[in-house]
Amino acid sequence: MRAVEWDRSAAALVLIDQTLLPGELTWVQCRTVDDVVDAVQRLVVRGAPALGAVGAYGVAVAMLQASSEEWSPEQLQEQVRRVRDARPTAVNLAWGADRVTPLMGAGVGAVLDEADRLMAEDEAANRELSRIGADWILERTGSDRVRVLTHCNTGFLATTAWGTALGIVRELHARGALELVYADETRPLLQGSRLTAWELAQDGIDYLVQVDGAAASTILRGLVDVAIIGADRIARNGDTANKIGSVGVALACADAGIPFVVAAPSSTVDLATATGADIHIELRDGAEVTAFGGVSTAPAGARGFNPAFDVTPARLIDAIVTERGFVEPDGSTSVESLVVAS
Amino acid sequence: MRAVEWDRSAAALVLIDQTLLPGELTWVQCRTVDDVVDAVQRLVVRGAPALGAVGAYGVAVAMLQASSEEWSPEQLQEQVRRVRDARPTAVNLAWGADRVTPLMGAGVGAVLDEADRLMAEDEAANRELSRIGADWILERTGSDRVRVLTHCNTGFLATTAWGTALGIVRELHARGALELVYADETRPLLQGSRLTAWELAQDGIDYLVQVDGAAASTILRGLVDVAIIGADRIARNGDTANKIGSVGVALACADAGIPFVVAAPSSTVDLATATGADIHIELRDGAEVTAFGGVSTAPAGARGFNPAFDVTPARLIDAIVTERGFVEPDGSTSVESLVVAS
Repeated sequence: MRAVEWDRSAAALVLIDQTLLPGELTWVQCRTVDDVVDAVQRLVVRGAPALGAVGAYGVAVAMLQASSEEWSPEQLQEQVRRVRDARPTAVNLAWGADRVTPLMGAGVGAVLDEADRLMAEDEAANRELSRIGADWILERTGSDRVRVLTHCNTGFLATTAWGTALGIVRELHARGALELVYADETRPLLQGSRLTAWELAQDGIDYLVQVDGAAASTILRGLVDVAIIGADRIARNGDTANKIGSVGVALACADAGIPFVVAAPSSTVDLATATGADIHIELRDGAEVTAFGGVSTAPAGARGFNPAFDVTPARLIDAIVTERGFVEPDGSTSVESLVVAS
Repeated sequence: MRAVEWDRSAAALVLIDQTLLPGELTWVQCRTVDDVVDAVQRLVVRGAPALGAVGAYGVAVAMLQASSEEWSPEQLQEQVRRVRDARPTAVNLAWGADRVTPLMGAGVGAVLDEADRLMAEDEAANRELSRIGADWILERTGSDRVRVLTHCNTGFLATTAWGTALGIVRELHARGALELVYADETRPLLQGSRLTAWELAQDGIDYLVQVDGAAASTILRGLVDVAIIGADRIARNGDTANKIGSVGVALACADAGIPFVVAAPSSTVDLATATGADIHIELRDGAEVTAFGGVSTAPAGARGFNPAFDVTPARLIDAIVTERGFVEPDGSTSVESLVVAS
């Protein structure tokens, strides 16, 4: 099962509707640029690597629509831009679209082949970083079976397949080296309780859902051996931007003396960003905090403060793992080795 | 306005129904022991000092019902025990009931007078600890106007009047020394966004609601000058049990170098408990985590891990403030001075 797929017989981009999980597993077919933009904006699909694939296949959707509706080249270009910019802060969407646009002249088949390659490469990267991460964790903890805490959703729903931080969890499970997963529910949008829990249940992995506020004490009480999370951007010095709530997990791990591991494909490393201080923190609508499932949970007029991400300084990170290897940042190291081919 | 009051004309215990806040401000009248037990169990009323008052007035409710329904002395004793044990982990309920039971022989008037004294004493303690806490904070931060982060609800709804941690916030506001409050929403039951936000709005205090996962980064980003929280139990060495999510706030304050202040009446200090390791952590129903307002937020069969409290070690606490003064615990100090009359 994949969150993002091209259906060749239907000539459509097919997405799992993540807004309906875990209650319902249904798919959304995108045959027009409007469909793609709507799916991205409603968070039918989310997660940086998954959005990269949507950006690439979205160009194919635009090309097919252009041919059936006889668009001018300018119209097609304009519609490709709409796919690219459907969520302005999601750089992967643009990255995926930009990867295939040079092939538009060669036809929709060439674009689809390149999008398929992007998918295959991301999956291979996830599987490789999962092996590297599992090795590092078992070596560092000296344990045969670990209890893992994770935050947000970094599984196949957020990627093209397998997952990043959750990919390491799957790898540990496959090796018989996983005892239990504590999944932070991840307010405000509950990617942990809705999506991570659903993926773990599908795989038969034993887990508990907890409120984000419980993470620190679960760690300090000695119930966890390692925390593993994904990343939205990794700066040159190893500072990382992650889903809001991550740095609190890192502080607790440091206090308890257990490892805090960041897992992401090497494309997440941004050498142009020197440190975490240079990362812009997206501020989302406060209503996501003051309401829940459309029901207000705060007094009328209450203002929500809703930063989507936080920055974990490199000094609190024990390992950054990509498909190229790992770095143990100490604030002075560069993570350059994770992006320069060895 | 009070969360708990005795209505002499109606001869009934009157409670603000906190389950309906912030949407609706309504009151529940308790004329029978069943009414009292139901209100406590449904969390119509919560908060340690408020439950102390309910325990005391609950004895009066039982006595009035005994006289109208002609109970035997044994029946009355049994019904008083039901009030006392309505929530087994809420020691204040028993503490309030036990304070008035010696006066039952002197009649319901004597019991009500003693319950009124308990209310008056708690309010006076709250106002005094608020002055002491505000002094300490302004002196320590060296600031004229502070930005405060708080967790859970410790205002008049949780106490007899005024509040503890939120009492200090009110005192700072009254002195013109409060700039802004960040209120953690406090999952799973949202006492922060539902109750604290409502109290702050009533008082015209400027505030923002944030998810609990945002607290650490708000602190690390320099947006907060001090964190102030209440306490459910304070051990002899200064370790404190607080609402789940508190120790994560304490870790972030320590990392950022801003003060973390615990505020509670001296009755919260338990010299019989040596350290936090001796505090039993109540594990509540996991369904509070895996559902929200009756709607499931996790896959069918998901198990929630739901510790109601966490323990903040004394080394992470800069000041414990009661009506008797403050202690700056360092792990080796005792907090005995906060309970022994000076």
